[in-house]
Amino acid sequence: MENASATVEKNGFFASAWGRLEALPTKAKAEVVETANSIKKHVQDDPRRVIHSLKVGLALTLVSLLYYSRTLYDGFGVAGMWAVLTVVVVFEFTVGGTLSKGLNRGFATLLAGALGLGAQHLASLFGEKGEPVVLGVLVFLLAAVSTFTRFFPKIKARYDYGVLIFILTFSLVSVSGYRVEEILELAHQRLSTIIIGGATCMVVSMCICPVWAGEELHKLVASNLEKLANYLEGFGDEYLQHCPKDGKSAAKSDKSSLTQYKSVLNSKSSEESLAILARWEPRHGHFRLRHPWKQYLKIGVHSRQCAYLIEALNGCINSQFQAAQGILKSEIQDLCKKMSQESSKALKALATAIKTMTNPSPADVHVESCKNGIKDIKIALKTWSSEQQEDLHEIVPTATVVSILIEIVTSIEQLTQSVHELSSLAHFKSVVEPTVSPEKPQLLHRGIVNPVLDDGHGDGDGDHVIIIVQEIPTDHLSPQSVNPQPKPAEL
Amino acid sequence: MENASATVEKNGFFASAWGRLEALPTKAKAEVVETANSIKKHVQDDPRRVIHSLKVGLALTLVSLLYYSRTLYDGFGVAGMWAVLTVVVVFEFTVGGTLSKGLNRGFATLLAGALGLGAQHLASLFGEKGEPVVLGVLVFLLAAVSTFTRFFPKIKARYDYGVLIFILTFSLVSVSGYRVEEILELAHQRLSTIIIGGATCMVVSMCICPVWAGEELHKLVASNLEKLANYLEGFGDEYLQHCPKDGKSAAKSDKSSLTQYKSVLNSKSSEESLAILARWEPRHGHFRLRHPWKQYLKIGVHSRQCAYLIEALNGCINSQFQAAQGILKSEIQDLCKKMSQESSKALKALATAIKTMTNPSPADVHVESCKNGIKDIKIALKTWSSEQQEDLHEIVPTATVVSILIEIVTSIEQLTQSVHELSSLAHFKSVVEPTVSPEKPQLLHRGIVNPVLDDGHGDGDGDHVIIIVQEIPTDHLSPQSVNPQPKPAEL
Repeated sequence: MENASATVEKNGFFASAWGRLEALPTKAKAEVVETANSIKKHVQDDPRRVIHSLKVGLALTLVSLLYYSRTLYDGFGVAGMWAVLTVVVVFEFTVGGTLSKGLNRGFATLLAGALGLGAQHLASLFGEKGEPVVLGVLVFLLAAVSTFTRFFPKIKARYDYGVLIFILTFSLVSVSGYRVEEILELAHQRLSTIIIGGATCMVVSMCICPVWAGEELHKLVASNLEKLANYLEGFGDEYLQHCPKDGKSAAKSDKSSLTQYKSVLNSKSSEESLAILARWEPRHGHFRLRHPWKQYLKIGVHSRQCAYLIEALNGCINSQFQAAQGILKSEIQDLCKKMSQESSKALKALATAIKTMTNPSPADVHVESCKNGIKDIKIALKTWSSEQQEDLHEIVPTATVVSILIEIVTSIEQLTQSVHELSSLAHFKSVVEPTVSPEKPQLLHRGIVNPVLDDGHGDGDGDHVIIIVQEIPTDHLSPQSVNPQPKPAEL
Repeated sequence: MENASATVEKNGFFASAWGRLEALPTKAKAEVVETANSIKKHVQDDPRRVIHSLKVGLALTLVSLLYYSRTLYDGFGVAGMWAVLTVVVVFEFTVGGTLSKGLNRGFATLLAGALGLGAQHLASLFGEKGEPVVLGVLVFLLAAVSTFTRFFPKIKARYDYGVLIFILTFSLVSVSGYRVEEILELAHQRLSTIIIGGATCMVVSMCICPVWAGEELHKLVASNLEKLANYLEGFGDEYLQHCPKDGKSAAKSDKSSLTQYKSVLNSKSSEESLAILARWEPRHGHFRLRHPWKQYLKIGVHSRQCAYLIEALNGCINSQFQAAQGILKSEIQDLCKKMSQESSKALKALATAIKTMTNPSPADVHVESCKNGIKDIKIALKTWSSEQQEDLHEIVPTATVVSILIEIVTSIEQLTQSVHELSSLAHFKSVVEPTVSPEKPQLLHRGIVNPVLDDGHGDGDGDHVIIIVQEIPTDHLSPQSVNPQPKPAEL
């Protein structure tokens, strides 16, 4: 019996070991598949990543083979490796990044080389024993002062890499211990190789599928506006229409259009770094040399303001709507829905204006509708209160939605104002729109409608009307600007 | 007459030129003063910046003089400059940053050197003509693949610098064209000098006034909670008390305690980078080697959630309070004020718990008060509605404040839960508090009060009572956790 049980146990052990062995390739396979999927996803998310990798490979191979070839090697000596080093360190994803690092590296090397030479000469005046002391003091002082300047936000943002290379080159040159003639030759070799490396990077970066930081910023700002618009559009459909009927609002809220806006909340750092890199870039596409990149940051500030409000709205809605089923009176509910949809249309019009670089005046009519919507809601609330005697506690969610929507409209007004400013600074084209959206803007109020589009509608009521809108000074179009001055702290 | 006028003109010209000349030193002086003030401000903001600069100067001087001294120079040859290069590039503000870069550099050089040697050997098998082709292909492939891996967020966060040095060293070694024996010697020299440079950085960074990334993160998270608490404290005083009396709420809102919270809105990137650096750091102060740094990010997520709500509240308050002067019924106003003050106390208790690394249970009683406050407000709203017939439109601001405050309380509950988790993960001390705050927590409701502190208060009513609170399992203390799982996307 013991033997039998031992055999069974043994069999069990082998079986489990065999099972594990069998599982091993399955596991390995699963991991390989997972990694492959992750790589695939990264490529699909942005195929330019693959192109960038190939570009780096190309630039590095070119410079490495130059270094490898004897003719060049004899000319530059060991300094040839600086070309390789430059390519590896300088090549960045965007053209702006590459230019910024390349130029920083070049100028810092030049300046620090000259200063280092001077330092060495100065130190040599102090004799054999004084020289290391003077050199040590000079290196210490220069390194400490330069490192301190890196804490200044302006220098950090633009010249951080230059300061680093400055410290490096100064130390290397001043303590190299070479004679001046040797140093001059070395400096000449090093500068030439750095120029070769830097130029290779810049040419490859700009000529093969360039990724412009400015264009990225332009697209990012426009797509952020679209994400906000998508929420407001989905918000109207999800919460203000179906909710009282089927009560599944909370479950539906994880739809992608309702969560996209969350990426806008943390967009500040990427917008700021792109704006800094964009300033290094030459004229490209529709962007002039002095394109007003700073204005994009201002639009970004207002976009985030709107995103914070949407985040608060989303939080209140998800936690309090369960309690407020059927409370929203259909009239106010309809007004809120229209207001959120008009807000969404205004944001989409602004995004389109930025994308196509045309005057953002088509957004004004939607902003006007929103403002009229606010008036209508206020009137509706007044009428409601005198008609009905409802439980105040149950009105709280409605009041919150109304209140935050009003704030969202205010922030959209500010956004519209800043897009108008961008339009005039960057000389966006006047709108000669090929077609008007077949849907007419939903005017919520009998009051003043923007006269510009009104004229157009007066001409005909077909679906595809060609309207020519004159360029109008921006301050006339949105006199409601709450915050016309740029905020230096945010920029 | 003409002469006279010419003289006058001439005099005028000279006068204006003289004026400008006189203004020149004044202008220059003003600029110097401005720069000096800006430097002074930078030093006062964080005096460790100066210390860091001096530390960099010291490390660089040490390594430079080693390089300068002939004995070392003879031993290492030109490779000595790698020590200087390493110091300049590796020395970072925090210990974690320095360690991360130093270790990345060391391991990447080792690995890439070995691979480069292999590549060169492989290429040499293909004969004189095949060698450059094979080398070119290898460099291209390795550079492209490595560059692509830098797009993966995990690698980007931790090993970005290592991958960079890997590409660099591989290219340099594989195309250097040296014989294997030469390369081995070079590799030995280079590694030794990198180790000298790296070790100098690490020793100076850790031994002279070290700045630990982990400690910075710990302090940052605690101070963010305090900033939120300051807003909620000031909010009660500014808007809910004085406002109906003097009506100057909007003007007062730029008080510093009411704007501090804005820095929390954009704290994500700095928290994440500190958490990554903290993982490289050895045991220091109260922090073990495997301190749960990721938990701080979770607290950060909830802090920002709370900050977004405060931003929305602030927006609504500032734009709508003017219209709602005197509308807030004093009873609801008082309840809101108490709720915001209890929220503030809860946040301050959490901040203190993190700072002193003690169990955060003192916050629970305030959270409980807040939750009872919500119930009271709901009751008050019900009573109010049956008593009075007010204009619904004018109730909107009150309802919004109530609604957002309720959301803030929910987010503070989540915060409390995540601080409790941190407390148990990081083994915070049980509370043996020396004194209890003389102010008793303002209990807003006759309902359930946390029994732990209740016992304490029952013992005596003097101002300085010593209370010993037992450590209680965290899930008992805050059963309301809405979101107990970590969000992988946010971490």
